[in-house]
Amino acid sequence: MGEHGLAVSRRHLLAGSAAALAAGAGLSGCVDTQSSSRSGGGFGHTVEPFFGRHQSGIATAPQAHASFVALDLVPQGSRSARATLEAILKVWTSDAERLTQGRPALADTEPELAERPARLTVTVGLGHSAFERIGLAHRRPRGMSPLPPFSTDRLDPRWCGGDIVLQLCADDPMVLAHTSRVLLKNVRSLTRQRWRQSGFRNAHGSNQAGGSMRNLMGQVDGTANLHDEAAFDRHVWDDGSEQPWFAGGTVMVVRRIRAEMDAWDELDRSGKELVVGRRLADGAPLTGKQEFDEPDFEANVGGIPVIPPTSHIALARHRTEDEQFLRRPYNYDDTPGSGETTDSGLIFVAYQREPSKQFVPVQERLAAADGLNPWITTIGSATFAMLPGVEEGHALGGSLLAT
Amino acid sequence: MGEHGLAVSRRHLLAGSAAALAAGAGLSGCVDTQSSSRSGGGFGHTVEPFFGRHQSGIATAPQAHASFVALDLVPQGSRSARATLEAILKVWTSDAERLTQGRPALADTEPELAERPARLTVTVGLGHSAFERIGLAHRRPRGMSPLPPFSTDRLDPRWCGGDIVLQLCADDPMVLAHTSRVLLKNVRSLTRQRWRQSGFRNAHGSNQAGGSMRNLMGQVDGTANLHDEAAFDRHVWDDGSEQPWFAGGTVMVVRRIRAEMDAWDELDRSGKELVVGRRLADGAPLTGKQEFDEPDFEANVGGIPVIPPTSHIALARHRTEDEQFLRRPYNYDDTPGSGETTDSGLIFVAYQREPSKQFVPVQERLAAADGLNPWITTIGSATFAMLPGVEEGHALGGSLLAT
Repeated sequence: MGEHGLAVSRRHLLAGSAAALAAGAGLSGCVDTQSSSRSGGGFGHTVEPFFGRHQSGIATAPQAHASFVALDLVPQGSRSARATLEAILKVWTSDAERLTQGRPALADTEPELAERPARLTVTVGLGHSAFERIGLAHRRPRGMSPLPPFSTDRLDPRWCGGDIVLQLCADDPMVLAHTSRVLLKNVRSLTRQRWRQSGFRNAHGSNQAGGSMRNLMGQVDGTANLHDEAAFDRHVWDDGSEQPWFAGGTVMVVRRIRAEMDAWDELDRSGKELVVGRRLADGAPLTGKQEFDEPDFEANVGGIPVIPPTSHIALARHRTEDEQFLRRPYNYDDTPGSGETTDSGLIFVAYQREPSKQFVPVQERLAAADGLNPWITTIGSATFAMLPGVEEGHALGGSLLAT
Repeated sequence: MGEHGLAVSRRHLLAGSAAALAAGAGLSGCVDTQSSSRSGGGFGHTVEPFFGRHQSGIATAPQAHASFVALDLVPQGSRSARATLEAILKVWTSDAERLTQGRPALADTEPELAERPARLTVTVGLGHSAFERIGLAHRRPRGMSPLPPFSTDRLDPRWCGGDIVLQLCADDPMVLAHTSRVLLKNVRSLTRQRWRQSGFRNAHGSNQAGGSMRNLMGQVDGTANLHDEAAFDRHVWDDGSEQPWFAGGTVMVVRRIRAEMDAWDELDRSGKELVVGRRLADGAPLTGKQEFDEPDFEANVGGIPVIPPTSHIALARHRTEDEQFLRRPYNYDDTPGSGETTDSGLIFVAYQREPSKQFVPVQERLAAADGLNPWITTIGSATFAMLPGVEEGHALGGSLLAT
């Protein structure tokens, strides 16, 4: 994403939802500096930039659908892991450069499915293991140190780790299916799929009223978030001071959080509101009137806090300026296993410079005391160094691999 | 759906896609007699009728997302299977009557997720086995006789059969997740889930240009379809002459058709066009200029037919008037198994009075000779008697169970 569009993008993030952006950019036909629509005939023609200082898909107003695919490198014959990774990143750069702009990939066998990208973004990152495998462990950003175990984790290896992550987001599920097909088949002999998580928010344009998304537990989710360019530069984008090649990149933490819906349903509304610290109806903090009102954690009635100190918002909120990070979550709702009614929850996605100073201290507080803990279970966890953006003529990962 | 809205609905079906309806009803704010929007603020408020002579979700212009859930009855204690089914249908009628109109279900634990139904339809049917289990085998519509085996079938039992089907369609994936949670949890002690298939088309509003949907093989799909009220009455809606209780119902055939994408990719474009009989670029028959041009199966060059006699459209097309039926397919794209790149294909859904005279003869021709056969595999099959619609104050299935 070009610097130029960030202010607009972040304003949309503040407003909350992809739908809000949709309402502005798609339905009224207006074009901002970030997303642009090349022709009429539906929002499908709206495109996000591919080239820029940062990869798109992070500061981008969240699209309705997302797919996160983790892959492991499978070097073939005498080719090194590093050469394998380089080949993958070259192919993906070429594919993504075209597909995000509504043009078929090279040798795209279903080129018509590329015509309406619907704000497709393709965002690529490397896992902890990849740096070892390509012999560049010394180039691993400090922010990539492994997350500590949290007491509430119940991690299933099938939702953890991975050498490479491919994050695809678009406002149309057809676009995700085609893009994921093209990108994965072009590297199938070089990779093995480790996991795939598919998520969604409200459909593009279903709600022009704005406000943050709801999760499937019914809560307004993601109110406290980063919104201005200075905050992104301070908390999200790496400045290259430690690893020059990583300037403009960021570290993504993906946590798969299962909602224990059967138990959650047994809690009444006031119980749910005390657990979260916000009203279910409108997402307003229990001390406020509207979603974006600042919570007052000091407010009390006869010494009893209005927002319980173990409520989710009391613990999830940053306690120092440095704890802030970008949240960009998606809901999931998969086919449940035998005998279960629902398999749903949140693909919690956080972007930051250094998780140990941002996500980790917040998550440690939550693991210790979050009132929500009885109703949620973290079953997957992975961390990726999301590569810096590239300019035209260069391939993703070039600053890491070129020297 | 009320009779009143059918002409409009069928016109939209002819026009092709949910997106086309979206463009008309949602974006311009106009209200037709079928879908109606109760307030501004995005298409999410658009509703489909619940009461009427027929269930909605069949003649309804296809929504962007669909979920098909097959359940088996699990009678508890001394309660009979018939009483169990009756209890399920009463609960679902009450839930669907509310949820489709943007109102929470009774005791809805996430009522805010019901506010924007986005053209939600809830459509319920009974499988062959259900009629035996409730002691009403003599009431089973003639159209429910089991499908014959087809030579190309490779059926996996985990995608076959079921006592009850719940078909949910909406233009917003959040709505499907919430609706499916509510409806399934309310009957969880009375049912066991057999399978669930989730499908999609282009997002609502992504393409205002119209035209039929494409499937993930890149083909324009569903051009030949029913469109006028007389055709629905003749080919889709049961007239009650054999089973009076079934008047206004229809028989749904759901086939899960896996696309063998790796092999399909190896075929060049002209090969694909000859296999299908239509041009990939615009869906026009090889003898025509536009998608809805009538194919000319007699056209030939020096005796060689322009549209091969084993092309998909040559065989899938009805050879007698009686072979016509309604197609309402969805794409699927699930997480592939270990070592595979893609698990995608088509949830082929057909509605008709009597499959043995409509779907079956067509499918027999396709199984024998369809040029597409090397690239597709039918792995699931199920048939359901989709219940007649109901008027306010009555429960689904009342005409079957009341006497």
